[in-house]
Amino acid sequence: MKAEIISVGTELLLGHTINSDAAFVARELAAAGISLLHSQVVGDNPKRLMEALESAASRADLLITTGGLGPTKDDLTKNIVADFAKAPLEEDADTAKWLMEYFGEANFTENQLGQALKPRGSTILKNANGTAPGFIVPFGDGKFVILLPGPPRELLPMLENEVRPFLRSLAKGRILSTLIRTFGIGEGSAAALLGDLLDGANPTVAPYAAEGEMFLKVTARAENMEKARELLEPVTDEIRKRLGDVVYALDAPSLENVVVNKLIEFHKTITTAESCTGGLLAKRITDQPGSSEIFRLGLITYANEAKEKILGVPHDLLMAHGAVSAEVAASMAENARRINKSALGVGITGIAGPGGGTPEKPVGLVYIALAFDGGLWVRKMPPRKHYPGRAMTRMRAASHALDLVRRHLGDLDQDSDIQWF
Amino acid sequence: MKAEIISVGTELLLGHTINSDAAFVARELAAAGISLLHSQVVGDNPKRLMEALESAASRADLLITTGGLGPTKDDLTKNIVADFAKAPLEEDADTAKWLMEYFGEANFTENQLGQALKPRGSTILKNANGTAPGFIVPFGDGKFVILLPGPPRELLPMLENEVRPFLRSLAKGRILSTLIRTFGIGEGSAAALLGDLLDGANPTVAPYAAEGEMFLKVTARAENMEKARELLEPVTDEIRKRLGDVVYALDAPSLENVVVNKLIEFHKTITTAESCTGGLLAKRITDQPGSSEIFRLGLITYANEAKEKILGVPHDLLMAHGAVSAEVAASMAENARRINKSALGVGITGIAGPGGGTPEKPVGLVYIALAFDGGLWVRKMPPRKHYPGRAMTRMRAASHALDLVRRHLGDLDQDSDIQWF
Repeated sequence: MKAEIISVGTELLLGHTINSDAAFVARELAAAGISLLHSQVVGDNPKRLMEALESAASRADLLITTGGLGPTKDDLTKNIVADFAKAPLEEDADTAKWLMEYFGEANFTENQLGQALKPRGSTILKNANGTAPGFIVPFGDGKFVILLPGPPRELLPMLENEVRPFLRSLAKGRILSTLIRTFGIGEGSAAALLGDLLDGANPTVAPYAAEGEMFLKVTARAENMEKARELLEPVTDEIRKRLGDVVYALDAPSLENVVVNKLIEFHKTITTAESCTGGLLAKRITDQPGSSEIFRLGLITYANEAKEKILGVPHDLLMAHGAVSAEVAASMAENARRINKSALGVGITGIAGPGGGTPEKPVGLVYIALAFDGGLWVRKMPPRKHYPGRAMTRMRAASHALDLVRRHLGDLDQDSDIQWF
Repeated sequence: MKAEIISVGTELLLGHTINSDAAFVARELAAAGISLLHSQVVGDNPKRLMEALESAASRADLLITTGGLGPTKDDLTKNIVADFAKAPLEEDADTAKWLMEYFGEANFTENQLGQALKPRGSTILKNANGTAPGFIVPFGDGKFVILLPGPPRELLPMLENEVRPFLRSLAKGRILSTLIRTFGIGEGSAAALLGDLLDGANPTVAPYAAEGEMFLKVTARAENMEKARELLEPVTDEIRKRLGDVVYALDAPSLENVVVNKLIEFHKTITTAESCTGGLLAKRITDQPGSSEIFRLGLITYANEAKEKILGVPHDLLMAHGAVSAEVAASMAENARRINKSALGVGITGIAGPGGGTPEKPVGLVYIALAFDGGLWVRKMPPRKHYPGRAMTRMRAASHALDLVRRHLGDLDQDSDIQWF
């Protein structure tokens, strides 16, 4: 079965709204094993919506619209789909009664009564967070248009509670996928190591880079879950084998989530001392609910004076090596650990830019240190050929700190054998 | 002139990626006065991409693709567009030379050389954050395909620096718009105060809420810039008059940008002491280049012990009122100011959730304090009807702190007269 999404709304074509609805629907289709080969966006325009329905019907058996179900004049999806599917609108007594109660008789207008109309022969989908119901409208043999509301808080529960069971009943076959998350390797190195695996048709392996990390999405399709798993697992295992310890998780929400959970599991507290990342590392740690178990204190010692006075980095060390140095990163980590008697201490110092670089210490240079019982690691952030901007430099630096913690807790070496490029 | 966007990428059809690129491009088209009536998404599939180009060309004169320009095998947009526009690929010597230098001769592979190919007769668009250039490829009389990379950090600067001037040169008429940024008012209150202004056709006034703030986009269209400005300014002035001091800037990049610039202008240093925001406030301040002039130290005193030991919040105060209290927020702000002898001190303490709430101190409760020479402000964050989640609670709390600083520096009252709803 093939599906096509038609997103309806002039606000999408003006760029006022980002089309997250299409992604939500796409995920449900993928999970049900229904192929989505194409999707469209049209404005609140009857003629163009009709054309979109017709062109979609020439390619797919299941059309899903989002948006245009509200009570105002420019909400015309239901009317056009009724024409398209030759299913004239008729009043649904239950919905009319419910709307009357919802709005109160005094406030009940003709516009609102329009929401009680359903295309003949359609199935109503309940809206848990609004007054516009959705619909499944049959057209032709085993073909359907599903109409969903635009606001995500109305669409999402309808998708999950009403549409998902319907899609599963339609679908032949299942799709299973795994997201392999890596840190410490670029797309180029990954492609070189994975080679042939990237060409597979089932499962497919798709690499993508985001925020200084690199992910591989492995997706298998089969007639049932068990067979999909049989296809998926050997490839996932082979990828893990080839990439080694740069793989930090499968299907985890984020690097910080993995690291915070490990710290909680191992009952290890951590204190951060940040300079160029300015609180970003602490922010990412405390983004995680429950982080207060392992995070008690973070210091952002942006100025040299703060590094000395609050953190206790020796004045002479700062003078001898400069604030951006392996030595100062190490001292920051050790003092962070000491000051709050925590299991781990992190120090980050660098030049996030765009200003402040020198020929010896260019913009983008960052040192990250991890102090622990009986040891100290210092990493110079692998340089990029081109300075990737302040935000990305800070993001990468915080991720390197999390990576050092992950490697320490996982009994791995300080650095991976794989070269970052 | 009519445009159509074709977003290329299987990850979009699987719902792995939300199509924000399409919204970015749509905004540029709207700003240039070019109509976008339809947009499409296709996977990394040669046949379907060709069909999408052909159907788009039947409706529009300007086609814009996003994605599929990278060095891997499934990046096929350039090849298919070259076929579509009958503009065979040929090596661009400058790009080849640049790539060779970028990667170094040893690492230079055939895949990478593919990035030096350009469709015959096309114009190259520089990529500030990556190796894949974009292209403007003419096809037919006054018709173009613009090829843009998929990653937003590559697409956005290319759009702004390279594509915008080209679009403006194509467009007839001018569009001028202003973004009025507010903090301290919800969409409901704004709608009540603005009333009729929201119904205008030229300029249009579009409110939208984002990350706890509320923006109004005012857009005028006219035959030239001067006339567009004559339409725009009276409406912008009237909106500012009605909303008063919740308006914090026009066309500024962010609240933190406005606040940091004001601190620099007034030579006022600031020290932050954060609990529930966990470094987010410091992170937002230090996101701004040049913030080291006014930000020297930030403390994240997550645990009570850290509040006492590092910051000097009295033990008895913590015991009497609890960590989440106006009194402790005030003490954090005053101690933050004192500890680093800065002009301003901020204290934030609250319950970001989802756990940790009690009937007396529910999840979402946050106190924010600002200490300054001769004064102290404490604000209880205006509660929301429904707890909006950990991330939004933290974001709003940090924004309230920035708002207090803005109001202090602007000689405004601690709170606006307008009620937040």
